[in-house]
Amino acid sequence: MLKEAIYHRPKNNFAYAYDAETIHVRLQTKKNDVQHVQLIHGDPYIFKSDGGEYSHLPQTAEGAQDRWQYDTKPMIKTGADDRFDYWFAEVKPPYRRLRYGFQLQDQEETLIFTEKGFFDHIPDDDVAYYFCIPFLNATDVFSPPTWVKDTVWYQIFPERFANGDPSNDPEEALAWGSEEPTPENFFGGDLQGVLDHLDYLVDLGISGIYFTPFFKAYSNHKYDTIDYMEIDSQFGDKATFKTLVQACHDRGIRVMLDAVFNHSGYYFEPFQDVLKHGEQSRYKDWFHIQEFPLVTDPQPNYDTFSFVPFMPKLNTEHPEVKTYLLDVARYWIEEFDIDGWRLDVANEVDHAFWREFRTVVKDAKPDAYILGEIWHDSMPWLQGDQFDAVMNYPFTMGSIQFFAEQSISPSTFSNSITNVLHSYPENVNEVSFNLLDSHDTPRILTLAGEDKRKVKLLYLFQLSFIGTPCIYYGDEIGMSGGADPGCRKCMVWEKEHQDLDMHGYVKQLLSLRKQIPAFGNHAHLRMLEADDEKSIIVYEKANEQEKLMFVLNNSAEEATYSLPILKERDLKELLSNETTTLDPHTPVSLQPYEGKVFQILK
Amino acid sequence: MLKEAIYHRPKNNFAYAYDAETIHVRLQTKKNDVQHVQLIHGDPYIFKSDGGEYSHLPQTAEGAQDRWQYDTKPMIKTGADDRFDYWFAEVKPPYRRLRYGFQLQDQEETLIFTEKGFFDHIPDDDVAYYFCIPFLNATDVFSPPTWVKDTVWYQIFPERFANGDPSNDPEEALAWGSEEPTPENFFGGDLQGVLDHLDYLVDLGISGIYFTPFFKAYSNHKYDTIDYMEIDSQFGDKATFKTLVQACHDRGIRVMLDAVFNHSGYYFEPFQDVLKHGEQSRYKDWFHIQEFPLVTDPQPNYDTFSFVPFMPKLNTEHPEVKTYLLDVARYWIEEFDIDGWRLDVANEVDHAFWREFRTVVKDAKPDAYILGEIWHDSMPWLQGDQFDAVMNYPFTMGSIQFFAEQSISPSTFSNSITNVLHSYPENVNEVSFNLLDSHDTPRILTLAGEDKRKVKLLYLFQLSFIGTPCIYYGDEIGMSGGADPGCRKCMVWEKEHQDLDMHGYVKQLLSLRKQIPAFGNHAHLRMLEADDEKSIIVYEKANEQEKLMFVLNNSAEEATYSLPILKERDLKELLSNETTTLDPHTPVSLQPYEGKVFQILK
Ligand SMILES: [Ca+2]
Ligand SMILES: [Ca+2]
Repeated sequence: MLKEAIYHRPKNNFAYAYDAETIHVRLQTKKNDVQHVQLIHGDPYIFKSDGGEYSHLPQTAEGAQDRWQYDTKPMIKTGADDRFDYWFAEVKPPYRRLRYGFQLQDQEETLIFTEKGFFDHIPDDDVAYYFCIPFLNATDVFSPPTWVKDTVWYQIFPERFANGDPSNDPEEALAWGSEEPTPENFFGGDLQGVLDHLDYLVDLGISGIYFTPFFKAYSNHKYDTIDYMEIDSQFGDKATFKTLVQACHDRGIRVMLDAVFNHSGYYFEPFQDVLKHGEQSRYKDWFHIQEFPLVTDPQPNYDTFSFVPFMPKLNTEHPEVKTYLLDVARYWIEEFDIDGWRLDVANEVDHAFWREFRTVVKDAKPDAYILGEIWHDSMPWLQGDQFDAVMNYPFTMGSIQFFAEQSISPSTFSNSITNVLHSYPENVNEVSFNLLDSHDTPRILTLAGEDKRKVKLLYLFQLSFIGTPCIYYGDEIGMSGGADPGCRKCMVWEKEHQDLDMHGYVKQLLSLRKQIPAFGNHAHLRMLEADDEKSIIVYEKANEQEKLMFVLNNSAEEATYSLPILKERDLKELLSNETTTLDPHTPVSLQPYEGKVFQILK
Repeated sequence: MLKEAIYHRPKNNFAYAYDAETIHVRLQTKKNDVQHVQLIHGDPYIFKSDGGEYSHLPQTAEGAQDRWQYDTKPMIKTGADDRFDYWFAEVKPPYRRLRYGFQLQDQEETLIFTEKGFFDHIPDDDVAYYFCIPFLNATDVFSPPTWVKDTVWYQIFPERFANGDPSNDPEEALAWGSEEPTPENFFGGDLQGVLDHLDYLVDLGISGIYFTPFFKAYSNHKYDTIDYMEIDSQFGDKATFKTLVQACHDRGIRVMLDAVFNHSGYYFEPFQDVLKHGEQSRYKDWFHIQEFPLVTDPQPNYDTFSFVPFMPKLNTEHPEVKTYLLDVARYWIEEFDIDGWRLDVANEVDHAFWREFRTVVKDAKPDAYILGEIWHDSMPWLQGDQFDAVMNYPFTMGSIQFFAEQSISPSTFSNSITNVLHSYPENVNEVSFNLLDSHDTPRILTLAGEDKRKVKLLYLFQLSFIGTPCIYYGDEIGMSGGADPGCRKCMVWEKEHQDLDMHGYVKQLLSLRKQIPAFGNHAHLRMLEADDEKSIIVYEKANEQEKLMFVLNNSAEEATYSLPILKERDLKELLSNETTTLDPHTPVSLQPYEGKVFQILK
């Protein structure tokens, strides 16, 4: 057994409270090394003497030693990546306290793994050896809003979704879709435009809108805020927004706004005040100024987002800045009843700020959703005290590389997906924000070399994955576009220029997600097979009632694939809605880039 | 290279802010497997084109790709345990942002290790591969009070340290030291007794007193609080305590009290109210009641500490309970100017409570010390938002097993100590509360089988270790005693019954700790050698100015030990205060259980 590969540490993705009574425990071992793992678990305060008497601390008398009272439970293997196998068990400790370790068995030996290392027998003279979840306090449980689990998001870049009110168009606005987007041009999209097309979104099947910023700002993307308390007049007024939120809620659609709290815009009044008054400005500590007077050339002498002079970093440790931004967070919830905040560049703001932010937001609306933009491993922000979710870029990158770019093998992809799923607790995965593209990246159709079959396969994977998917406006009708600004074209509303086939496909998948719990977010996903020769992956989604098998052919060739588990079962293929039984000699056959979803009926 | 052994994850002991400008990075590899490690590090937003132009995001043009601008820095090996080597480097990123990875080299290959896995070259087309410390926000830096680093604690169990005022003795109090302690008896120790003996403590060289509880309670140990706002009358009154704190401060001694917030006592008024009024009690939600009426037999039907009926667990999620306990925390600081809180059973209270507790305590006294009682891996409580330190039981257990019980080998001990040091950030280690025994365990002299030589060696190790040591009252004069209640004997004040040799030795070590920064907390400690045959360990403590070599003979035999590093150097042995030069043929010679400390003069 390879001891060096064995890893466990509590209070992260390896051991966590799934809910107020359930603890999940995972273990990492070398891939294909260990055959069986048992979880050794018990209450830290139950010991028993040889004579059968119970005690709460281990008493040692001459020649006798009280023994810790533990149970064992088999762990199941939930997946593997390129280096490791992952094992899982859940326990519901009756007194909400848990000490635990692992009994590992391979063909040659049985070892006990604890916080204090390895043993050849289960030590029971004390509990100090063991890993510990000291007490399952309900308030510490990672608890995202329950509605998020069943939400499908739709991302809207307000300047480019729909122009519902020409009267508010910026002076320089171009005719809708008349030109390619540039970093500077405007087309007049607004909130009324969204209101006008809500029924389109309902019909598509989405249940949440994520708006990139529409607060008063200079640019067309509005990430350079001038006033966090005002809607930019090019998008309409607050009354329209209030109507929009209400109209969304009437249709079962949640509304999430974009909080750009890492940095303000250059024209944010406090920053202008510092530019003007320098060291005398009462706002000088609102930013991180290295020296006065402020210059932007050759580099800004104040902290910025990246090195962008017009995005000065806010000092979120400063009490006045905190008060201001927390007021902003509260205001849009209390006044407009929004349902969530997406946090721009969330990782560069201090944790202390986000903890206060969470308190303020949840006080204002207990089931509000807090989504952080973080591109890397985000466990430190997902412990229950800060965010409800992060944007799942590891999912994004793996999916794009595999389906769109075809740059990684099925097994590499399968490994990376298993790794993503095991990098976070299950309750974190369930509300993870799974995007394929956004206003920050090229569109999927472009990434997929304009091959719509690949995009469909991407959608099948995304919309059957654990978490809450997000569709970037226009992708569902086959819009293309390269990196910013190319990905920010005006939405195409003329039916004759929309890809209605793609639209129908997305709609079908969203409908399956709603109708079949195991297709959506109410199942465990396991990557089962990855055939590097045929470029096929197979994964399972199962809950106690249902079992679905996904077979995806990620190649330009027709393929057949034999799946013993499907043989002689009554099956329904969900995309074609055809019922079938596969006899022992018939493999699954797949067109190029086709995916099939088999519901096992019995 | 054994890939499965390689581990790193940011924002814990593997990567953390040491101070507002310094980031420490550690890496784990299989023991004796990797020969060189380079840290690859850079700002996430600096890229350069082939033409030499800088950009902030990697631009890809036809046939050209901007490259991430990184530096490399060799990592040093800071130790090994039974499975792993540990590597270390520090960086001060100019813009407080860091992306980083590792270049590992063994005899056969060079590999790059990143958050996204292994590569055979340094990927520089993007930073998304790399581990990330997104921004070094000062407020998130783990920042214990600076005074703690140079503090030596003395733990006082108030009922047993000194009786300075017979008028407040409990009725049933026995004559001082006239009988063995039992779980129920009283001897009349009090606060005046401590005041009377402060000069003794100053002379010994301690600089902090940790008091186990003295709030109004039923038992002699006072962990079953009746009133958190009152001093138990058997210990004196608030005026006396105020005088005591002032007298301590006048002598440079800090005062830490024991906060028993996990559970109250049975006679705590709110709990009595619940017992009396059951479901009608306005305090019913202050506890975790499973059903009414409350019973204690066969088991309490309310949550308790362990299964102890007279210690009902407090519901620290309840707003009133929080307000009450936070008021308590604030009161003793504001009214009496205490310097710290030690938190009893800290791990079973919710993290959310401790975060609020920290805010309240630091608001009341910014340099107050918060010490949690946790016996297991405590990283989740030591991220800067909760505690300043925990009681270092892994240190305790290893030291007792090796020096007192002689039940583990030098290499096992050395491995476990290296493991402890690498389980936490350096700034955590520096204020870790290193105890050998307490009111909860047998005394060290008893654990060491009454062998004073072993106790001296234990003290040498403890008092030269990284962290802040704590001496349990009376150990320094050779008191013995088994598990509770044996370890709670009355302090012996008659000089003729004190072990003055032990006292002098402890005093000498504390004086060395003060005089020689590298002896105390201002150096790095490395375990250098562990000779299992001779039972000798060697460790180094070094800073930029000083280097000390500790050679400890943990056996009943005289020993000689050859240490090439000491050869032909001018040395001062600190315990004997003798200056010497070891010629190439002379080993260090040691008596049974003797330790020597060589200061390398040049
Ligand atoms: Ca408009
Ligand atoms: Ca007294």
